[in-house]
Amino acid sequence: MSEERVARALLSHLAEPGDRRIGRLLRTSSAAEVVDMIRTGTTGIEAEEGYRVRLATARPEEHLERVGALGGRLLMPGDLEWPRQLDDLGDAAPWALWVRGTVDLRLTALRSVAVVGARAATRYGERVASQLGSDLAVSGWSVVSGGAFGIDKAAHLGALAAQGVTVAVLACGVDVSYPPSNDVVFARIAADGLIVSEVPPGAAPHRTRFLVRNRVIAALTRGTVVVEAALRSGALSTAHEAERLGRPVLGIPGTVTSEQSRGVHRAIRQGALLVTSAAEVIEAVGGIGVDLAPEPSGPGDPRDALDPLAARVLDAVPVRRAATLESVARTAGVTPAETAAALGLLELSGFVQHGPDGWALGAPRGAPR
Amino acid sequence: MSEERVARALLSHLAEPGDRRIGRLLRTSSAAEVVDMIRTGTTGIEAEEGYRVRLATARPEEHLERVGALGGRLLMPGDLEWPRQLDDLGDAAPWALWVRGTVDLRLTALRSVAVVGARAATRYGERVASQLGSDLAVSGWSVVSGGAFGIDKAAHLGALAAQGVTVAVLACGVDVSYPPSNDVVFARIAADGLIVSEVPPGAAPHRTRFLVRNRVIAALTRGTVVVEAALRSGALSTAHEAERLGRPVLGIPGTVTSEQSRGVHRAIRQGALLVTSAAEVIEAVGGIGVDLAPEPSGPGDPRDALDPLAARVLDAVPVRRAATLESVARTAGVTPAETAAALGLLELSGFVQHGPDGWALGAPRGAPR
Repeated sequence: MSEERVARALLSHLAEPGDRRIGRLLRTSSAAEVVDMIRTGTTGIEAEEGYRVRLATARPEEHLERVGALGGRLLMPGDLEWPRQLDDLGDAAPWALWVRGTVDLRLTALRSVAVVGARAATRYGERVASQLGSDLAVSGWSVVSGGAFGIDKAAHLGALAAQGVTVAVLACGVDVSYPPSNDVVFARIAADGLIVSEVPPGAAPHRTRFLVRNRVIAALTRGTVVVEAALRSGALSTAHEAERLGRPVLGIPGTVTSEQSRGVHRAIRQGALLVTSAAEVIEAVGGIGVDLAPEPSGPGDPRDALDPLAARVLDAVPVRRAATLESVARTAGVTPAETAAALGLLELSGFVQHGPDGWALGAPRGAPR
Repeated sequence: MSEERVARALLSHLAEPGDRRIGRLLRTSSAAEVVDMIRTGTTGIEAEEGYRVRLATARPEEHLERVGALGGRLLMPGDLEWPRQLDDLGDAAPWALWVRGTVDLRLTALRSVAVVGARAATRYGERVASQLGSDLAVSGWSVVSGGAFGIDKAAHLGALAAQGVTVAVLACGVDVSYPPSNDVVFARIAADGLIVSEVPPGAAPHRTRFLVRNRVIAALTRGTVVVEAALRSGALSTAHEAERLGRPVLGIPGTVTSEQSRGVHRAIRQGALLVTSAAEVIEAVGGIGVDLAPEPSGPGDPRDALDPLAARVLDAVPVRRAATLESVARTAGVTPAETAAALGLLELSGFVQHGPDGWALGAPRGAPR
């Protein structure tokens, strides 16, 4: 475990998520240096005692161990699995993410949509959220939500029912079940998807943490769909974050007589796009093909440089899970020997990576964001 | 009865509404001249026999008498009561309107909204249309629709229930009840509102007449609200006409599971404004005050030239019905003598007109459109 990772684990205990003052320090200093500044009272931040008093209760190694025992990890910028679109949050970007689950967060998030809405949802809203979650999953999109009652839960369950990947971004530790009665849902998400949080294991959800958490949901995803929201629903804050980030904001209409649709209707009147199906959501957030690939950037897509065999094998590596050499060869329609050679070259360039479960997509080295 | 009016009555029997070839001739010729051209076969229109064969069954004087007996009239361009916004239809503008009812069509239409939708409406749609009709009426807006089952009927009835004015634009004669079981509704509309048609008394509704009728609904009104519409609903043709005319198109959302909302949702996705209440409809189609007045044009609003007393008295003349001198004086808060003097001057300029029931709003003379 690198010193920097431990320092970021520690920092997630000392400072609240989204703390721009910490974010600004991290522009020019490592987390280890920032922790040192906090220890020595040299951050230059007013009232830095607030961070320092938490030093006494900090147990970063313990937290890392606890998450590791759950099959989890702490991600930080620079990791292959780090979702680089979070940098769009600027100084408010997370400096680390506690993650539970076996799928790759970056690849999952590349083709993901936030499906959010009221806790006090109607049966209509829950039905639509669940259907949307399923339909998105069937189309190969993952569903990101907040793990709350109502719309969030329906969207997660819909995705899981279709054997899709779903990501719950929590305002509490990834080992905390909040709301407690959602514990079965969290267990299923951890098994087949991902549970993500900025706060360390064991941390309790606070009101402000729910709000700052919403920016992560908005920033991780290609767009945010609001299924139901009363006029003052917190779900609208996710939509506002998405809007600020330039990500599409989409809304599912309902009857004008439903209080739970009023916030959505207002959002649509203010510019959100009305959507009625997963297909319309996908159309709005990005076209197939473009989304499957890591974002092309710089002079061209790094894939463009691949020879036809390598490109064919790369296309056969599944997007969301690892696959065996044999399975990739079968899908690509080439011999296992050719596949192995191509995968070796692709691994060198970072296009794929080999793990305990086989071959999975990676990020090509040297590809700028 | 002027020769020109009789000629236009006759023309409404010879040609179908919206016939641009007739509209083009009327740009430079009177209706009497066009009728003569038809008689003598000199219109220059291909297949003009189509018009000529109908000459045999033409009974314009009889039609005018029949409508007169119903308390109706034939309006034509140039009449004080002619809604000049119909000219926006260009060559497809009506050359005459058969009207049944006692209120003034022009003044009614100045502050009117089209509320249209599916015949096969849901209970939700009918409830919303009725509420919208009532709320618009209470705010002093009149409701224009097509007199059909479902949304149309609910909107008309809602407006009538709130003692508002509603206008049914029919595809058949103003004395024909189609659909027949709506006859009670038509009787109520004729009593408290207006029934309008381009085709003469006794004329039957044809499929094409419904479609061309929709352009009149769109052109008469400040904007069109679609309450419910399946993907192929005829109600959407009214919305398209409104769009072509640059009038706002508004849509009431519903559940994504309702077939009857799919056409509305598609329209909203294509640019129509989502609305959930009469207040939002009114906000979209125009502000109070501006709408009450005849459209300002040319160098300024003719009202601007009025002295304060005259302006005050004019404001006290009700928009939709005639009022007695005493009632106007009471509303204006000035003496009957002052009121009488002001009304006399206002009548000279055409701002008001005096009829059997008292004083009503007129159109100021010389006011360009």
